Amino acid sequence: MTLTDDICMDRAAALGELGAGFTAPNPMVGCVLVKGGQIVGEGYHPRPGADHAEIAALKAAGAEARGAVAYVTLEPCNHYGATPPCTKALIEAGVAEVVYAVADPNPLASGGRETLQAAGIAVRAHPTLAASRLTDAWRFSLTADRPWVAAKFAATLDGRVATRGGDSQWITGPAARARSHDLRQRSGAIVVGVGTVLADNPALNPRPEGRAAAETLKVIFDSQARTPPHAACLSSPGPVLLITAEDAPGAAKSALKESGAHIISVQRENEGLCLRSALHCLRADFGCLSIMVEGGGRLLGSFADAGLIDEVWAFLAPKILGGGQCAVDGHGPSRIGEAMALTDVSIEMAGPDFLIRGRVPRGSES
Amino acid sequence: MTLTDDICMDRAAALGELGAGFTAPNPMVGCVLVKGGQIVGEGYHPRPGADHAEIAALKAAGAEARGAVAYVTLEPCNHYGATPPCTKALIEAGVAEVVYAVADPNPLASGGRETLQAAGIAVRAHPTLAASRLTDAWRFSLTADRPWVAAKFAATLDGRVATRGGDSQWITGPAARARSHDLRQRSGAIVVGVGTVLADNPALNPRPEGRAAAETLKVIFDSQARTPPHAACLSSPGPVLLITAEDAPGAAKSALKESGAHIISVQRENEGLCLRSALHCLRADFGCLSIMVEGGGRLLGSFADAGLIDEVWAFLAPKILGGGQCAVDGHGPSRIGEAMALTDVSIEMAGPDFLIRGRVPRGSES
Repeated sequence: MTLTDDICMDRAAALGELGAGFTAPNPMVGCVLVKGGQIVGEGYHPRPGADHAEIAALKAAGAEARGAVAYVTLEPCNHYGATPPCTKALIEAGVAEVVYAVADPNPLASGGRETLQAAGIAVRAHPTLAASRLTDAWRFSLTADRPWVAAKFAATLDGRVATRGGDSQWITGPAARARSHDLRQRSGAIVVGVGTVLADNPALNPRPEGRAAAETLKVIFDSQARTPPHAACLSSPGPVLLITAEDAPGAAKSALKESGAHIISVQRENEGLCLRSALHCLRADFGCLSIMVEGGGRLLGSFADAGLIDEVWAFLAPKILGGGQCAVDGHGPSRIGEAMALTDVSIEMAGPDFLIRGRVPRGSES
Repeated sequence: MTLTDDICMDRAAALGELGAGFTAPNPMVGCVLVKGGQIVGEGYHPRPGADHAEIAALKAAGAEARGAVAYVTLEPCNHYGATPPCTKALIEAGVAEVVYAVADPNPLASGGRETLQAAGIAVRAHPTLAASRLTDAWRFSLTADRPWVAAKFAATLDGRVATRGGDSQWITGPAARARSHDLRQRSGAIVVGVGTVLADNPALNPRPEGRAAAETLKVIFDSQARTPPHAACLSSPGPVLLITAEDAPGAAKSALKESGAHIISVQRENEGLCLRSALHCLRADFGCLSIMVEGGGRLLGSFADAGLIDEVWAFLAPKILGGGQCAVDGHGPSRIGEAMALTDVSIEMAGPDFLIRGRVPRGSES
């Protein structure tokens, strides 16, 4: 197999993905070193304070790094942070060329390209969708006052997530459910509405095996503090945050606090809670760089109506339900032309089901 | 390129498709003759009375047919109908082998395999999805007392076909709309609910260029005969049939008859019309072997609830609407396990949109 730029960069992206759930506030980054048509070193950034992807790949390659091409999903950093600059290490190792997917927008770390070029190293950009997606949330977090919002649902082809009576298990198969855990894994918080808690009593743990579970915040939008104090999500690993209205019953809030939940209050807006206030608090007070909103339909509808969705993960089962609860159940725009048109769309199979992913262009935020 | 069985059979299917809209009551059939790794003849059945696909391919190949392999989407016929048996022609032409996708279930025409084998020709089955789909509706029509029902919709990823206010133009792009005309083209009737007529005033013509339009029946489920006498579908090419309730206003029916519409009445059932009676009438009195139900959501929901969908064409735009009208808006089952799970699912791109197709297994009919 010829190692094309696309193959090498997507391999770097797959390596970077191995850090999902552990790198915040740093980005996921992967790196592949190629020489003579062979991969001579690979690495990724596993957690803050640990080696950056480039360093890990250079260590793996050893002397083979001299004259190699480095594929890295993010422009190599140029500053002394928790670790020395990657540019310095790449130059010292004698790398011949650096290919990166996305420029580093972090003003503290930028200048990597120029530093490498000044040292005589060829540098070029080669973005792939997989590699750029890896840092979507992180790049957004550098300037935004709220987390990156990924909306996820599992629906039939006619957009249903449950029967009228509320039965939702299972629309999609085990492969899709496992794949959706990859998204949970990389999110700083898993967000649901109280209706989902009352209907399904989900544990909301990031993975069956509990990887990174301890750090993932479980957030429930629950204006009236109706979450039962014995809900499964309160006893599964990881902290729980309830977002309530200011007029939520005090007794209910007290009982939930005793069950270990954090509780904040935000003002009401339209028929629900002010999502912007809640998101701002998640970013400022809880350090969430990204969240995954799982549903139900009404909560996803509120996020859609507020223009607060950045990315969509739609798992679609090849089924027709014909009636029941809708995946995204807000008001919707008045004109079709105002629908959220996704960009950078991809599709993959997850067993018999489809996963369609895309980004929401920034301009469409209301 | 090596001409594998799959490639040759799918080529035969693509040829057969060229007859779409013209072959009824005969099936669409395509044929490819291959010799020495080359295609030496191709043919399809264009219309009743014309050459069958095998004959057309044999004529195209001439002397090259001797020793060739014939790929044909349907087992060659073995009887004298409007034309002599294809088995006879294949034997006389000296074909070495016959590969067919689907056995001929028509008792009048069967025995092709045995006749060919008795003449020393190797025969084997090699079904592909494209080739077997070509005759789905026709095979169904041989024994069923109703038409094959294809449900088609164009929705966002969250299953919406229009905004709350009814704006639906356009969910999908030009490529998807052109592709959906392929389905109209092959259907004996295009079926909509009166709500769609009132909201969108569609012409319901099979193709912009009007191919086969003259033969395609336009059917409107309209219990109260609310279709405006000046609706676009009444003046576009092809006959119109209104299916009304027995208590529909006589004056409205008279006005529509004067506009050229055929009108039948069926009894009421649940909140709508008895779909089985209507379908039986379409088959028995109007000769419809297949119909395409385009919507709106309530009509598709009624078909889904009644277990009267045989095939689904779901065009999905990579968009989220977030609220609005649902693609299939019936009651739905009480359990997720009772959803229509499609089989033989395929996905293709139509510009930026997706087309997911699948069959509904017979057992799921209620």
